[in-house]
Formats: sequence, structure tokens, C-alpha cells
Amino acid sequence: MNAYRRKIQYYETDKMGVTHHSNYIRFMEEARVDFLSQIGWDYDRLESMGIISPVTAVDCRFRSPTTFADEIVIEVTVEEIKGARLKIGYIMKKPDGSVVCKAASEHCFATPDGHLIRLAREYPEFYKALEGFCEKGE
Amino acid sequence: MNAYRRKIQYYETDKMGVTHHSNYIRFMEEARVDFLSQIGWDYDRLESMGIISPVTAVDCRFRSPTTFADEIVIEVTVEEIKGARLKIGYIMKKPDGSVVCKAASEHCFATPDGHLIRLAREYPEFYKALEGFCEKGE
Amino acid sequence: MNAYRRKIQYYETDKMGVTHHSNYIRFMEEARVDFLSQIGWDYDRLESMGIISPVTAVDCRFRSPTTFADEIVIEVTVEEIKGARLKIGYIMKKPDGSVVCKAASEHCFATPDGHLIRLAREYPEFYKALEGFCEKGE
Amino acid sequence: MNAYRRKIQYYETDKMGVTHHSNYIRFMEEARVDFLSQIGWDYDRLESMGIISPVTAVDCRFRSPTTFADEIVIEVTVEEIKGARLKIGYIMKKPDGSVVCKAASEHCFATPDGHLIRLAREYPEFYKALEGFCEKGE
Repeated sequence: MNAYRRKIQYYETDKMGVTHHSNYIRFMEEARVDFLSQIGWDYDRLESMGIISPVTAVDCRFRSPTTFADEIVIEVTVEEIKGARLKIGYIMKKPDGSVVCKAASEHCFATPDGHLIRLAREYPEFYKALEGFCEKGE
Repeated sequence: MNAYRRKIQYYETDKMGVTHHSNYIRFMEEARVDFLSQIGWDYDRLESMGIISPVTAVDCRFRSPTTFADEIVIEVTVEEIKGARLKIGYIMKKPDGSVVCKAASEHCFATPDGHLIRLAREYPEFYKALEGFCEKGE
Repeated sequence: MNAYRRKIQYYETDKMGVTHHSNYIRFMEEARVDFLSQIGWDYDRLESMGIISPVTAVDCRFRSPTTFADEIVIEVTVEEIKGARLKIGYIMKKPDGSVVCKAASEHCFATPDGHLIRLAREYPEFYKALEGFCEKGE
Repeated sequence: MNAYRRKIQYYETDKMGVTHHSNYIRFMEEARVDFLSQIGWDYDRLESMGIISPVTAVDCRFRSPTTFADEIVIEVTVEEIKGARLKIGYIMKKPDGSVVCKAASEHCFATPDGHLIRLAREYPEFYKALEGFCEKGE
């Protein structure tokens, strides 16, 4: 699994001179999409199969700021997968290894009309792919 | 017709200390949605009637910067309406009357599956409502 | 204290048809800025006094989605104030009272060059204004 | 000169199912920053030298929509450089060569306290670097 790398854009900074904190929530999504792609389950393919995965919670603890032209490296882990629920962890670092922030997001799996999907039963291959990257399984 | 007023948010500023230019394109959308609401054709109602109105062009000329906590006042005009095409003009000012920027957006009207809608024929009431605010009609 | 009200903009929705989750982090900032203004300590005034208040953590639990043209009502509370640290709580509701999300943000107070400010000692009036809205003080 | 490539993120789509038009203004900035980097004048280095380059105008004509997971390829050209003014052109395409949009941005060069900088006289090397990519010079 390759970490996700991306550069901070000018429009992501604020008048304090640093990356506005709300953007890290978006970087989490970028890294999560990249992770799903790397394990062979691209999110656009999931959507076309009728699986959506809304975010049910996010949290992020900021350690040190970044700014325009900085590169951040995002490591993604599957923290928990259980029933229709998935928890993803993120550590963002600068290339020198210093921690920028630690974050997590929680997701459910559902059909576009709102029925929860139990992955283990309905999409066992996708479930196994996620479980393989998880520290604590169902 | 009331001008649309809104405050600049902190997350809309950039490290130059001013409102990032891309946000004015979003303020144009806000003011356009408010204008449609004021003339009785709320955009969410248009969508539920099966009318979408994609943006086909935008341009914006910036005169003076704004920053966090500034209020801007946006005047909207219908510059042209013709067939399935609409051009909207915007002047954004500070409360003291100084001009922040002048902008325009162009739109078409279409069904969600992509067929152009000739407003004058298919939605004559909506067409007339827009035409009433326009300097040059069909 | 008035709740902060705001409408969801079209550009805040995503292809799932709902408000993208990252925007709620921005709504928290809007509501926080409005709260500070209502208690007489506008954030732009704080900045001009040499006080900045970076976000050190955010978390948000989503209950039900919103979409374009929805109005949300945001109630802000001071959950904790202690030394150079402040924790703000948010409940976002639809006008019918149904809960959209519950969130919190943590902040420190610092000078622009990075020295932590102990509010109680250095800005006792501002500290008291915040403490007055807090359930648990120092 | 390499074209700038980037993927559309989920948070850049809107409820119409496509990339929200305001984001293309941000993609222009990303491509411009990448262009400056490729010609050896990184924008963060310009800022640290005391040169800022505010956007004075943008326009964009949209040809065909993109959506989540699409890749766009952005070609940047120097359309005009004259005195303290610069005009940049952009063509965004899908990897199959179909045009997504054509755009332009205008810029001035200034010191952080607002004095216009005549590049040809004050930063002749930077001026020549830009002029070398321009169809019509001063």
C-alpha cells in the first residue's frame, strides 16, 4: 500500500497563512478514494454497482500546520469493519516525517435509496479486501 | 429586487490575506439563486420540475479586494435571454458603494437527460419573469 | 444568544445529492464567528488585537443529511475553557427541530508568532465573556 | 512543458452529478502554479522574494462536463505579457482529447504593500522566462 501524496494548493490556505483546517477533511476523502483504488475497489465502481458509503463521523486532531507548496503524505488504515460500518484512520505527515494531523472517519454502506448493506454477506470479496487491512475484524 | 448581501467567511480568505478569487464565482451562484427566489422561481423548484440550468461560461473582473468579515452587496441583472440561453450580470460592491468586481455568467436550460429547453415556448411564464428584468429580449 | 441560521448552497452539495460532509466543518466556523460577534468579541477584532485562535481539533457526528436550499440552525455552546484552551460545541438542526449533526471544535489562543496566551490572565474580560456561556470553567 | 494532470475529487462534484463549475477556476490556479514551477519560478519562491501576483480577471467557457474520478489534462500558455500585466490561457481536456473548457486569467505583479512591479525592468530574468512562452511580447 502506497501512502497518498499531495501538495497544498494556494486556494487551500487562509489569512492566517496556513492550510485551512477544513481542507484536511477533504484530504482524508482523497486518501480514502486512493486507498480503495489501490485495493481494487474504486469508489466510482462501487457507486456504479449501487453501493454508496456516506460519512457518518469525522474527527481530526491537528499537530502542526502546513502551508502552500508543502507536500503531505497520508497513510490510511482500516481501523474497524463490522456489519455495515467501517472506520478508517489517517496519519498525515510532512516528507520529513513530522506529524501534521491524526484523523478518523466512519462510514456506512448503503444502497442509493438508503438501505444498509451488510458487506460481509452481500459483498464478501469487498469485505475481505477491507478486512485484510484491518487490525480488528468482525 | 433586493440586492444580495453576504459576509466573507474566514475559510474564504487565502494567505495573501484577502478573499480567494475563486469564491466570487460561488457568490455569483448564491446571488443568482437568491434572484430566482425573489422572482418566484426557486432553483430547487425548477429542478423538481425537471429543469436544470448548467453554467456555460463565467467571467469576472476584480477591482478591489475584500477580506474576512467584510460585507458585500451583489446586484443581479438579466443581461440577455434568448432561446435556451440566459446571461446574468453581477456587480459586487462594499456597503460604501465601492466596486469589488463585475461579473457575468451564461447558462442554458435543459432537461436532466440533456435536451435543451426553449423557455419562451415550454415555460412561457418563467420566460416572461426573466424577460421582465432584461434590457434586451428575444 | 441567537442560533446561527444559514442556507445550504448549491456548490456545497455533491453527486450523492446531499451537502458534502466537509462543509459542516466550515459551518462550524461560521457559527463560531457569529457567536463571538454576539458576545461582543468579533474575531476580526481579536486578530487586530494580536490574538489568533487556531483550531486544534474537530469532530462531527452526522445524523441526517441536508441538501440544496435547506436551512440549518446552529446552536453554539462553550463546552470548556481552561488556560489557553477552548472547546466549543455545536448542534445543527433543521427548522423542524430534527438533528443534522453534533460537533465540537477545540482551539488554543496564541499570538501571531506562536506564543500561547492564557486568556484568564491576559484578557480577563474576554475570558469572563466566554466563561459566562460555559458549563464547566477553570 | 508538461501538461498538468489531475483527478476530479468527490467533493468537487455537485448534485447535478458533475464537477461544480467554480472548481475549474481553482484548477487554473493549480496548473498556473505547476507551470511556474516547471519554468523555474515557483510561486512560493516569488512570494518569498516579495512578488505577489493577484488575479485581476478570470473567464472560462465550459464545453463538456466532467465528474468524479475523471482525469483532466490542462495545457497552459502565456497569452500576453506587458508591463506589470500577464495573461495566461488554459485548455482543459479529457485524456481522449475532448475539450472540457477554455479559460484565461489575468494577473498583475505587485509588492505585498501594493506597488506594481514592471517585470521587464525589475525582474528581467523572470520576464524573459515568461516571454519565451508567449506568442505576443511587449
